[in-house]
Amino acid sequence: MNIKDYLEQKRDDVDRFLDFVMPSATTAPATLHESMRYSLMAGGKRVRPILAIAAAEAVGQPAPGLMPIVCSLEFIHTYSLIHDDLPSMDNDDFRRGKPTNHKVYGEAMAILAGDALLTMAFDLCSRPDLMKGCDSVRQVRLIQELAYGSGNMGMVGGQVFDIQAENKDIDLPTLQNIHKHKTGMLIRAAVRMGAIAAGATDRQLDDLTGYAEDIGLAFQIADDVLNVTGTREELGKNPNTDAERGKKTYPTFYGVDGARKLADDCVTRANNRLASFGTAAEPLRELARYITSRRN
Amino acid sequence: MNIKDYLEQKRDDVDRFLDFVMPSATTAPATLHESMRYSLMAGGKRVRPILAIAAAEAVGQPAPGLMPIVCSLEFIHTYSLIHDDLPSMDNDDFRRGKPTNHKVYGEAMAILAGDALLTMAFDLCSRPDLMKGCDSVRQVRLIQELAYGSGNMGMVGGQVFDIQAENKDIDLPTLQNIHKHKTGMLIRAAVRMGAIAAGATDRQLDDLTGYAEDIGLAFQIADDVLNVTGTREELGKNPNTDAERGKKTYPTFYGVDGARKLADDCVTRANNRLASFGTAAEPLRELARYITSRRN
Repeated sequence: MNIKDYLEQKRDDVDRFLDFVMPSATTAPATLHESMRYSLMAGGKRVRPILAIAAAEAVGQPAPGLMPIVCSLEFIHTYSLIHDDLPSMDNDDFRRGKPTNHKVYGEAMAILAGDALLTMAFDLCSRPDLMKGCDSVRQVRLIQELAYGSGNMGMVGGQVFDIQAENKDIDLPTLQNIHKHKTGMLIRAAVRMGAIAAGATDRQLDDLTGYAEDIGLAFQIADDVLNVTGTREELGKNPNTDAERGKKTYPTFYGVDGARKLADDCVTRANNRLASFGTAAEPLRELARYITSRRN
Repeated sequence: MNIKDYLEQKRDDVDRFLDFVMPSATTAPATLHESMRYSLMAGGKRVRPILAIAAAEAVGQPAPGLMPIVCSLEFIHTYSLIHDDLPSMDNDDFRRGKPTNHKVYGEAMAILAGDALLTMAFDLCSRPDLMKGCDSVRQVRLIQELAYGSGNMGMVGGQVFDIQAENKDIDLPTLQNIHKHKTGMLIRAAVRMGAIAAGATDRQLDDLTGYAEDIGLAFQIADDVLNVTGTREELGKNPNTDAERGKKTYPTFYGVDGARKLADDCVTRANNRLASFGTAAEPLRELARYITSRRN
């Protein structure tokens, strides 16, 4: 399979669905919807939705309501970027090559756009018109996965660990704990949600959860490496911001080459978990490789 | 019935459940949980959860999972207060007689505490251990009510309408639209969620929705009046802030006495909707009266 074509096709599917469910920029309250759209449709890679789709494909059963489920992950991811960029948080001016949300719409609207995107993620997963055909027991389980992965014990918790580590001489376990929560838990939720939507067995869900945890780590290491080696054009934001902020990252502990090797090991381990899925898991395998080779 | 005793008993029930589900202030990430607890347990009146309980009682059927459902409303309400108080929003220093969340924990933590409380509302409604016995179809419906009432077309939307009206010479329909969304939609969701959890018929749900819309308006008018007539001790925050900010409110349009009369009319109309429920709706009737007579 060609991973580039696969990514492009799935990204188009996701973009089309996001555009469909997201109210237009003229629907009242118009500025709120415009601001939500600005960040939601800003050309994200849609890694989490695509991972969820690929996990559902690996399980192989039809998955009613798959698109709202996988797109809810992008709503969560987008809100987290808007709030992370705020002046009182990372204070970033650029994201994906464009001014950050609060630079365009002001802080108050950026906070509210984030709140609305976060809430809308759960709206998508519970809307009767969108989720037709999805078994309700399964639907509640999917909502629980999303809430757990993105909340106080997941992504938001990780953001707190991250803030508390700023300008501190943290050790490797502390760094691992930050990433496990900040990036790892939502990627884990993405893969599990795709699998659950497609009716995975407990055994399949265990294997896919292991895969997700490994690629979550690989994803973060690759991000840290890109922050050192990427250009402003590749990243769509300023490079080397971690070092400037005195942030410890994987390259700090292992060097750039050591960190790359570590990420590759994670990918190998992740893909070893997929043995029982055969060719149906080929997209997941390619996605794991893509994660460490990407340039942005 | 004695409404004071009723409110006190239900508030105790809600407080006990909130304390039970909210991780302790020493659970990692400790500062996040401490900050979430600081606002969640700050002595709120628990109006929304109590309305939901009273609605369930009016319908009269056992409602499995009622406590997590009604408490999810308080998680949403609390997050909205934290975010509303932020410097870039209302910039309030006091809330319920205590320094606001960001004054104690800083802006970044206050934003994240709000995000985590919002997410946890949906966690509560979907947790298998808490929601045991609740039919999944009903559970998804409850989650949808919560998401719709609190999101872009509900509470968050109302906050945006409110911000956009600041320092503008708005007319009465604009004011009504702000309140319908900002306060009304979550109160509406509260009453509907209690009713749905207890298995309300369509007809019962219609009547209770009408009741909720009327008391939502009464609640906001009473709030506006209290902002003019209340003392700092009664309110736990500075009085007369609306006038200082040049905000148009119900007393601006109708005068204090006219606004009070309007609120009383809403209560009468609300209670007329409850005829078919008989004595089981007595708490709802008393709650409607309490809303316009309260001092804070």
